[in-house]
Amino acid sequence: MEKRMLLTGFDAFGGESINPALEVVTRIQGSMDTGIGVINVRSLEIPTIFGQAIEKIHSVMREWQPHIVICVGQAGGRYQMTPERVAININDANIPDNDGQQPIDMTIVENGPAAYFSTLPLKKIVCELRSIGIPAAVSNSAGTFVCNHLFYGLMHIIATEYPKVKGGFIHIPYLPSQVIDRALPSMSLDDMTRAMHSVIKTCVNDLVIQEHTC
Amino acid sequence: MEKRMLLTGFDAFGGESINPALEVVTRIQGSMDTGIGVINVRSLEIPTIFGQAIEKIHSVMREWQPHIVICVGQAGGRYQMTPERVAININDANIPDNDGQQPIDMTIVENGPAAYFSTLPLKKIVCELRSIGIPAAVSNSAGTFVCNHLFYGLMHIIATEYPKVKGGFIHIPYLPSQVIDRALPSMSLDDMTRAMHSVIKTCVNDLVIQEHTC
Amino acid sequence: MEKRMLLTGFDAFGGESINPALEVVTRIQGSMDTGIGVINVRSLEIPTIFGQAIEKIHSVMREWQPHIVICVGQAGGRYQMTPERVAININDANIPDNDGQQPIDMTIVENGPAAYFSTLPLKKIVCELRSIGIPAAVSNSAGTFVCNHLFYGLMHIIATEYPKVKGGFIHIPYLPSQVIDRALPSMSLDDMTRAMHSVIKTCVNDLVIQEHTC
Amino acid sequence: MEKRMLLTGFDAFGGESINPALEVVTRIQGSMDTGIGVINVRSLEIPTIFGQAIEKIHSVMREWQPHIVICVGQAGGRYQMTPERVAININDANIPDNDGQQPIDMTIVENGPAAYFSTLPLKKIVCELRSIGIPAAVSNSAGTFVCNHLFYGLMHIIATEYPKVKGGFIHIPYLPSQVIDRALPSMSLDDMTRAMHSVIKTCVNDLVIQEHTC
Repeated sequence: MEKRMLLTGFDAFGGESINPALEVVTRIQGSMDTGIGVINVRSLEIPTIFGQAIEKIHSVMREWQPHIVICVGQAGGRYQMTPERVAININDANIPDNDGQQPIDMTIVENGPAAYFSTLPLKKIVCELRSIGIPAAVSNSAGTFVCNHLFYGLMHIIATEYPKVKGGFIHIPYLPSQVIDRALPSMSLDDMTRAMHSVIKTCVNDLVIQEHTC
Repeated sequence: MEKRMLLTGFDAFGGESINPALEVVTRIQGSMDTGIGVINVRSLEIPTIFGQAIEKIHSVMREWQPHIVICVGQAGGRYQMTPERVAININDANIPDNDGQQPIDMTIVENGPAAYFSTLPLKKIVCELRSIGIPAAVSNSAGTFVCNHLFYGLMHIIATEYPKVKGGFIHIPYLPSQVIDRALPSMSLDDMTRAMHSVIKTCVNDLVIQEHTC
Repeated sequence: MEKRMLLTGFDAFGGESINPALEVVTRIQGSMDTGIGVINVRSLEIPTIFGQAIEKIHSVMREWQPHIVICVGQAGGRYQMTPERVAININDANIPDNDGQQPIDMTIVENGPAAYFSTLPLKKIVCELRSIGIPAAVSNSAGTFVCNHLFYGLMHIIATEYPKVKGGFIHIPYLPSQVIDRALPSMSLDDMTRAMHSVIKTCVNDLVIQEHTC
Repeated sequence: MEKRMLLTGFDAFGGESINPALEVVTRIQGSMDTGIGVINVRSLEIPTIFGQAIEKIHSVMREWQPHIVICVGQAGGRYQMTPERVAININDANIPDNDGQQPIDMTIVENGPAAYFSTLPLKKIVCELRSIGIPAAVSNSAGTFVCNHLFYGLMHIIATEYPKVKGGFIHIPYLPSQVIDRALPSMSLDDMTRAMHSVIKTCVNDLVIQEHTC
């Protein structure tokens, strides 16, 4: 049976004119054969806005019923593709979101658990990325801005409504064009797109193998 | 009249299995039309060895009589394409070269000047690179290893034998595959190759325009 | 009533010969008047060993019944005093601990919550440190080595046995002497000791004020 | 015979309210016994202004006839005490100086040599600093702002007027108070002052030993 994967990317924020996450996910659409399974990927733009980000992903999950959800976000200053290990129940913004909101030390879900762990195969993702020449590492913090907010929201939706769905978040570096005159790390759009194809394949195959062994 | 450009790249050193400089320059060969002039580019591998590096470039310059010489080297840890401003008259190695030599605080050319400035159009190079989305900046130090050694040697050869030739050095970042498990900056081979085409074009056009205005 | 504060620091690990955390906490002992309250500080060395670290802090907490527990650890590469926001339920070691153990992706407390938040006044701590000229910031990840392990263990002990006790973790930079030939950030022992005095005062006063207002 | 050392530090620039260089040099004044020789140190504030900086040091050198001149400047972002190896004949400012001047690619001394090397014992300075626990390294670029400008001006004055005088430049990190909310390296005033005493001692003893062996 064909699996469905929802792949999300934020719009630009924080003074940037583009968001590498959106650039990458909009390049990946439709059916892919991963060798073990077939996956139908749907890309979704998410507003960098507290609240609305979670509402949008929730609405599309309800309608489309994906088996896997991977959210992608920009982590300016990072060197590597970094799948996130954990989402924490807090909004604490250093800058305003795209709607001017800047929550400080607020919980995302009242009485929700302090954190959720990603259910993506983090170490396999990193291992596969490195094997194709892409710098990668597991990250232990998705921050406390809209990225972590969406990640936590996603995992809470999964935990409370769709416990069989696999979900997680991947932070990616700046594009070279965002740092032409700054000494900051970047990764090319081609490499990040190639990397996301690898991530998708790893996640799908992991899911298929799990189902066959259970 | 067609111009000749010698483009050099070092072999791997310091425990690395490849050198991005060599990867890039070997991808660029033969005639290119820059819009203003035509340039014939010859790529040359240089050993990362004090002494032999200069001897090799000297020998090919004598034989082929290039109008422009650009040496390219790896600067692990840099974020940008960095044309070097100045070569200094010193060898001071932190690690052995590929022949086991590790000179400490030795002059390159006895009684040579303390330094030579690059005669490439540094600011134009940086400006053009940024205009095509490539991170770039002028660097004020080529270090004191074989890179600076070759750069100084080149400029000394030019100053004493070929005063009309333009010469300089460009340091480039690691390739992604060199830093798959390290939090260090890198640039893709495609972007660096595209960048070097821009550098070549900028240098050739600068030379042609200078000749027409003199 | 005099309050009791337990202040812990790890022994050296990872090839270092000293641990700044231990250097700092052993300089702070005995009674301090914070202006609002009086605090009796007891310093405790903790082995950088999974399991034993938690056992040791547990045993001293049972015996001495502190009102506040602050654990201090070295975060090599950090620039600032960084109170940690959250401890996560995972051991995932890049290097062996001081007993040769290197757990990979293991939970700390089976069926424990995914994370615990610090109950120290993080923002006040940072604000007070900056007001006395000390670089400081809240950190969102204590890593997945023995530091996070002890932090999680502490918060689990508090949650399950001593719910009124306040607890948390502070990561501190290298000492200058640890990085004499490395381009890595450091902070002087005097500044870090001064900083810890400020942290203690902030935490005690916060506790006293909370008690008076409840 | 007592030696005279001129020690200079710039005033604050680039939006900073203090300059660590000035803070350090004003703490060091008068006679010091180095064990081998006796040195009389005079501290001098230098304006961060192209032209005036060199004029001021020139004027005091003429009047006071120092045997050694060490200029100190802030290098924001550096981790270590960094004696500079070489001054280059160029002004190329990224920001305006304290008089609003921002020269681009201008020579400092027309027809002056491309560069001057420091005549301070760089490696001994670094070695002694590390031996007392201070992070230190030789730097190969003093930049192209007023620091390099003064350094080049000093070495040109020495080369053309006082060939027996020893001279050089040392870049020092930010003070902690300058980076309280920035992830940038710093060094405490106490450590930098202790470091400068070590530098002075190393330079004086090197001069005395040279004189005795010649």
